[in-house]
Amino acid sequence: MRVIVDAFGGDNAPLEIIKGAALAVAEYKVEVALVGREEEIRRTAQENGLSLEGIAVIDAPDVIGMEDEPKSILKEKKNCSMAEGLRRLAAGEGDAFVTAGSTGALIMGATFLVKRIKGVSRAALAPLMPGDKGPFMLIDSGANVECRPEMLLQFAHMGSIYMTRVMGDGRPARVGLMNVGTEDTKGGELQHEAFALLKKSGLNFVGNVEARDVPDNAADVVVADGFTGNVFLKTMEGTADIVMRNVKRLFLTDLRTKLAALLVKPYLKDFKKKMDTSEYGGAPLLGVSRPVIKTHGNSKASAVKNAIRVAADFAQKGVIEQIAAAVRPQEKAAEPEAEPAED
Amino acid sequence: MRVIVDAFGGDNAPLEIIKGAALAVAEYKVEVALVGREEEIRRTAQENGLSLEGIAVIDAPDVIGMEDEPKSILKEKKNCSMAEGLRRLAAGEGDAFVTAGSTGALIMGATFLVKRIKGVSRAALAPLMPGDKGPFMLIDSGANVECRPEMLLQFAHMGSIYMTRVMGDGRPARVGLMNVGTEDTKGGELQHEAFALLKKSGLNFVGNVEARDVPDNAADVVVADGFTGNVFLKTMEGTADIVMRNVKRLFLTDLRTKLAALLVKPYLKDFKKKMDTSEYGGAPLLGVSRPVIKTHGNSKASAVKNAIRVAADFAQKGVIEQIAAAVRPQEKAAEPEAEPAED
Repeated sequence: MRVIVDAFGGDNAPLEIIKGAALAVAEYKVEVALVGREEEIRRTAQENGLSLEGIAVIDAPDVIGMEDEPKSILKEKKNCSMAEGLRRLAAGEGDAFVTAGSTGALIMGATFLVKRIKGVSRAALAPLMPGDKGPFMLIDSGANVECRPEMLLQFAHMGSIYMTRVMGDGRPARVGLMNVGTEDTKGGELQHEAFALLKKSGLNFVGNVEARDVPDNAADVVVADGFTGNVFLKTMEGTADIVMRNVKRLFLTDLRTKLAALLVKPYLKDFKKKMDTSEYGGAPLLGVSRPVIKTHGNSKASAVKNAIRVAADFAQKGVIEQIAAAVRPQEKAAEPEAEPAED
Repeated sequence: MRVIVDAFGGDNAPLEIIKGAALAVAEYKVEVALVGREEEIRRTAQENGLSLEGIAVIDAPDVIGMEDEPKSILKEKKNCSMAEGLRRLAAGEGDAFVTAGSTGALIMGATFLVKRIKGVSRAALAPLMPGDKGPFMLIDSGANVECRPEMLLQFAHMGSIYMTRVMGDGRPARVGLMNVGTEDTKGGELQHEAFALLKKSGLNFVGNVEARDVPDNAADVVVADGFTGNVFLKTMEGTADIVMRNVKRLFLTDLRTKLAALLVKPYLKDFKKKMDTSEYGGAPLLGVSRPVIKTHGNSKASAVKNAIRVAADFAQKGVIEQIAAAVRPQEKAAEPEAEPAED
C-alpha cells in the first residue's frame, strides 16, 4: 500500500506534511511518496530531524496556491506538486493520493488527470462531519453548485458505499436527503425528483432529513446539491465557532469563572477532539477512478497522518470497484452496450 | 396602537398568550385584542388570576393546528382564531397581528385575507437570528422554497427597510447575499442574477456573504431563497443545540466539573439570553399590507410580550409604506400607469 502525498499543499506545507508522513510510516504499514520540491523536502526533513525512511520523494518544481485559478492545474501550473501527484496516481505509481491544497484545483485536476469512474457524471467532495454520536458524511459539500436529480442519486450511492465499507460496521449506511422538512413532499423540484429516485434506489434511504437533525446524526450519508451542502457545512462551522467563542469568553469573565475553566480544562480537550473533523482524515473526493483524499488546508501533522491512514483504507476496501458497479446500471440506459453490474 | 393577538396559536396557548398580553399592556402603552374562544380565554384568565384590563376579546370558535393543511385556513378552518385575527387586521380593527401558530397557515392566511403590498410578488418570513454582536435578519427563511432573482431583490428591500427602521440606529442596514463564497462570481444562476440586481439596487449591499460568517454578523440582512434560508436557520439551531448539549454533558462529568458548573451558572444565563431569539420578538412576515409578526410555536409569556412590543414598533415605524414605495419603481416596468415612488 503506497500513498502519494502532496508535500506542498495547505498552510503548513511542507513541514507538517513531512511530519505527518513520517508519523504514518511509523504507525501504519504504509509506504508514502511525498511529491514536491525534492531539495526543499530533504532539507526541511534534515533541519527538523525527521527521518525519510520508508518515504520516497518525487520531484515537482511548482506549487499551486489558493490564489491560483483551479484550471491552472492543467496549464500554467501543470508541473505543480498536486498535478504531479495526480498523474503518478493515475499511472498506478501509488494506491491513493492525499492533499491539503486547493479544493478547486484538486477537483479540476482529479477529474482531468485521474478521470472519473465510468458512468459517474460528477465527482463530489464528501467530508466527514462531527455529529453528536459520531461522524456523518455530507455529499456534496460544494464541488457541484448546481445539480440534477440523477447526480444526487449517484452521490447517494457513492456516499453509502464509502460509509458502509470504510467507516461503517457492515450495516448499510442510512442515506438521507437534506430538505426543509421530513415529509416526503418537502422541497423544490430537485428534491422531489431526487426523493423519487432515492426511494427506488435500493439504498437504505431514510427519507428527507432536516438540517436541524443532521448534526444529531439523522443519517450517515446526507445528500445535497453542492450549494446547499456548502451552506450547511459553513453554517455548522460558523455556529460552533461563535458558540465556543462565547463559552470561552464566559470562562474569562472573572476569577470564579477562571477557576471553573481550570476545573473543566481536562475534559474540554475531549470535546474539542470530538468536534475536530481532522480525526476522520478529511474528505474523500468520490467518483474519481482512484482514491483521493482532501484534508483541511490548515492540517497539522496528525491530521495528515490520519488522512494517510484513511486514504489507505479507502484504497483497500474496494470502494472504487463498488461505485463502478453501482453506477453501471444507470449508465446502461444511455449506453446500451455497457455490461450489466456484477454484484 | 392596538395589537391583535392570536390567543390559540402555539404550544402554550391560551395561558402563556394571555399572560404575555397582560404583561405587554402593563409594560407598554399598547392595547391588545385577544382572538379565540372567548369563554375559554375569560375562564383561563380568571383561573390564573390574570387581569384582562386593557385587553379586548374577539370570539373565534375554531383553532388551526400544526396538523392542519395551511390552505384549510381559507376553508374548513376559516373560523379559527388566526383567520379571524387576520380578517380584523385587514378591516383596520387593529394596527398589527401576532401569532405563535402554524407558519404555513399564517403565510396562506396573510396572503389571502390581508393581501400583499401592491407590487410585492411574494411575502417572506424574516426571523431575527442571534449573531455574536447582535441580531441579524434572515430573509427568506422558508416561505418561498423556489425563488426568482427579482424576489430576492424584493426581500432585500423589505429586510433593509425593516432592519433600518425597526432594529437599526438610522444607518442603512448592510445587506448580504447568502452564497458559497464572498467572490462576486460565486453561486449558481439564481445568485449571479440576484447579485447583479442587488449591486444596482441602491441598497447598502455588502456583496456575497458566506454562511460561516453570517453568525458573526457579516450582514444585517441576509438574503436567501427560502430553501437555503431554511437550511441555514435549522443548521444554526441544530449545531448550537449539540454544542450546548456537549458543554452541559461536560459539566456533569464529575464533582470537579459540577463545581465548575456552579461557578459559571450566573453567567450562563446571559449567554442563553443572547442565543435566545425570542428576545427579539419573533419574525416579521414582510410583504403583507399590514404588520404581521410570527413568534415561535413554543413561545412563553415573555416572548409573546416581546412580540407585541415589536409588532407595535413595526406598525409605528412606517415600514409598510416604505416597502410600498420601494417596490413601486420595479412594478412600474410592468405597469406603466403606476405612480412614481414618493420618497
